[in-house]
Amino acid sequence: MNQPHTDFARRPLPEPLLLALRELLGERFSTSPAVRDHHGRDESAFPPAAPDAVAFPESTDEVAAVVKRCAEHGVPMIPFGVGTSLEGHVLAIRGGVTIDLSRMNRVLDVHPDDLDATVEAGVTRMQLNAALRDTGLFFPLDPGADATLGGMAATRASGTNAVRYGTMRENVLALTVVLASGDVIRTGTRARKSAAGYDLTRLFVGSEGTLGVITELTVRIHPQPEALSAAVCRFPSVRDAVATVIQTIQLGVPIARCELLDAATIGAINRHSKLALPEAATVFFEFHGSPAAVKEQTESVDAIASEHGGAGFEWATTPEERTRLWTARHQAYFACLGMRPNCRVVSTDVCVPISRLADCVAETEVDVAATRARIVARSPGAGLPVTLLGHIGDGNFHLGINVDTANPVEVEEAESLNERLVARALAMGGTSTGEHGIGMGKLDFLAAEHGSAVNVMRTLKAALDPKGLLNPGKVLRAA
Amino acid sequence: MNQPHTDFARRPLPEPLLLALRELLGERFSTSPAVRDHHGRDESAFPPAAPDAVAFPESTDEVAAVVKRCAEHGVPMIPFGVGTSLEGHVLAIRGGVTIDLSRMNRVLDVHPDDLDATVEAGVTRMQLNAALRDTGLFFPLDPGADATLGGMAATRASGTNAVRYGTMRENVLALTVVLASGDVIRTGTRARKSAAGYDLTRLFVGSEGTLGVITELTVRIHPQPEALSAAVCRFPSVRDAVATVIQTIQLGVPIARCELLDAATIGAINRHSKLALPEAATVFFEFHGSPAAVKEQTESVDAIASEHGGAGFEWATTPEERTRLWTARHQAYFACLGMRPNCRVVSTDVCVPISRLADCVAETEVDVAATRARIVARSPGAGLPVTLLGHIGDGNFHLGINVDTANPVEVEEAESLNERLVARALAMGGTSTGEHGIGMGKLDFLAAEHGSAVNVMRTLKAALDPKGLLNPGKVLRAA
Repeated sequence: MNQPHTDFARRPLPEPLLLALRELLGERFSTSPAVRDHHGRDESAFPPAAPDAVAFPESTDEVAAVVKRCAEHGVPMIPFGVGTSLEGHVLAIRGGVTIDLSRMNRVLDVHPDDLDATVEAGVTRMQLNAALRDTGLFFPLDPGADATLGGMAATRASGTNAVRYGTMRENVLALTVVLASGDVIRTGTRARKSAAGYDLTRLFVGSEGTLGVITELTVRIHPQPEALSAAVCRFPSVRDAVATVIQTIQLGVPIARCELLDAATIGAINRHSKLALPEAATVFFEFHGSPAAVKEQTESVDAIASEHGGAGFEWATTPEERTRLWTARHQAYFACLGMRPNCRVVSTDVCVPISRLADCVAETEVDVAATRARIVARSPGAGLPVTLLGHIGDGNFHLGINVDTANPVEVEEAESLNERLVARALAMGGTSTGEHGIGMGKLDFLAAEHGSAVNVMRTLKAALDPKGLLNPGKVLRAA
Repeated sequence: MNQPHTDFARRPLPEPLLLALRELLGERFSTSPAVRDHHGRDESAFPPAAPDAVAFPESTDEVAAVVKRCAEHGVPMIPFGVGTSLEGHVLAIRGGVTIDLSRMNRVLDVHPDDLDATVEAGVTRMQLNAALRDTGLFFPLDPGADATLGGMAATRASGTNAVRYGTMRENVLALTVVLASGDVIRTGTRARKSAAGYDLTRLFVGSEGTLGVITELTVRIHPQPEALSAAVCRFPSVRDAVATVIQTIQLGVPIARCELLDAATIGAINRHSKLALPEAATVFFEFHGSPAAVKEQTESVDAIASEHGGAGFEWATTPEERTRLWTARHQAYFACLGMRPNCRVVSTDVCVPISRLADCVAETEVDVAATRARIVARSPGAGLPVTLLGHIGDGNFHLGINVDTANPVEVEEAESLNERLVARALAMGGTSTGEHGIGMGKLDFLAAEHGSAVNVMRTLKAALDPKGLLNPGKVLRAA
């Protein structure tokens, strides 16, 4: 919860730019306070920062025209999907024009034979899956929120089933990108692999809108599994749950998802979703494949779990049961938010080599308890409810830190808890964020993680956006 | 077979540089004609181009020192592994110092629990697999040659089983890279996924030594499959073979390899490897998994193949039988070379969306026949034996064009056959190279494939190697 940069003097947008964008987009260019306010928020705990105006282009050409005009006037631009960022990516901390891509929501092309689809950047993952419903194919990536695919590419998102299907890094084949100059490029082709030149696709995936505006993308889609089965298993401790998952991965069992939720998270979900799950360290598993393969996988995992004290293996084989389970899981953010009224959630994530996951989680649990004790001592009546959950097949886990932003003790302790979490992950050979991105929230950790490689990132930023107008202050501190 | 650039005046290396590198490396710095000559060749059809000297560093620090000194003197540098490039990557067409990484061949760290290994860039894939033998793990990528992992990363290599395990793009977790300045960076961590900053790892993977020198890499390793089975199946036509593979992929059958060889290739292999395989369009399949999964996969593929006229399904379940099959496959390059004495092989590869593969192969076969007829008419007694084979689960296939480089008609026709092949692949939504890289051989196709995105590649090159000293004339034409 570093505060957004306020060390810049906000100047009103130049009149000629306002005129030009109104002429270009008509009603689809807005400076109304309500629209600006809506675009100055996301799901992070950062204070809102509204842009000066919002553009709603409907084509790559319109995006290019907006970018060209803003560039001429030296005005910052912030790409915006549906605003589900957890790290402040869409906050207009230097003012400027937000480019809302939600009207670019056409599924342009589906190639069932090639297992790929081309969409505009504003298409959400659920919208794509609705379009694919009759093809026997689906887009598996699932970060929880119904984010746009453009936003997911920009933040290198992944989610619960990356362990089986990969992240956006592996699932984007090609992009259409508007550069800082307003020039439009196409990166990649529909070929499944290529050794032709620098990997521009992967450079823009995860660049968080700071190197270009993604307007279209070609993604991999996957055959719907013939059989699908989900299970819930409770463990004596988080360590036992993690040990089960490590062994499963090492044996090469191709699990589709495995989500760890600690007892506190289960409690929060029970209250939020009116469930009565036993409040213990719990893993949600999902298995995809042929019926025989799924049966084999489930038997393997059942056996491994039993060795680690896993109990109460409950199977959900009907779609309704599975949906209920995963909906509860996806409500974890809101469940955490609902733990105390009028609070914000600092949602942080790290990812470590899986051999270190149990240690990292255990040390973090100790740290959370100590932090909470310190807060109560410093500020009687305060709390700091924390939920822990993760896509542990990848070594990725999240803390949801419920913070009363009006209480400076809680804010300070939440920040330092997050800092220690990241330092712990880095010391274990991990990364400061597995899937949320740097945004504004993890700027200070970039150098700790990458050392002098951050200079290379700065060089790339300067080369591709010399005026620093694309989403300034995200990934790298604005100059 | 564009000729290498000869439009530069080769100057001898500056005496102070020679002295400095001799002082640094002693006997491990060589200007002997034999050593230079050895480093001026690869497995492409390009004429050799020897460097002025060869350095044999033994550590990242030594590579950095070599780079720093060459940079000070404005001398080109060419990273070199074992010289198995097929597109002229290692030819010193602007002179300079070749940095031979073969002495950096230590396996630094194996983390069986995390399924990763860190190696120096000169470690070959077979060497890594030998080091992994007792762990139950293996490094699956197999481009045929026993290339170094540094070279494989630099060219974004893949090979026969990328359909199951991915390419170097998916299998490199982190790199140590010496930049053009001599500065050393580390990209990535051992975490399985990360959203922390620009994806420098993927930027250097496939950059062909033009953006930095890879000195160490952390790669994913995989559990050895519990069961493994291979099969050979013959089809009435290449189209039937391809149709079988497309349907297999679409059903989500996780085949580990599927290699197409046309009748001419089988003939060449028979002669080279003293085999008696029936000379027809043939697919080699390999299946990995649990015993039950392998059984299920093989039954599925058997059924699909039968629908498409597949016959003579022969199973190889013992390691010896499998090795014999795959060794024969891997000898295809040398078998093609052996089709006529004193010839060179132009080994080209393209990759298309799998739905277009059958068309692309069929049109190419017609083109090959027409080309051969034209050659015979123009130059009686000439030939142009061509082999076609490919990793068709990815949509990737190769032509081995056996060229008598002393016959200008053959050279010209081979070049234009390659040009038409690439144009055909691009028109079908594919790429000019699936796995061999751009090198010098496909420079002219880069813009055809990427359009104005090539300008972004030039911008990146200029930003990271402003003097243009890193492997000049590869990927992008030297200024």
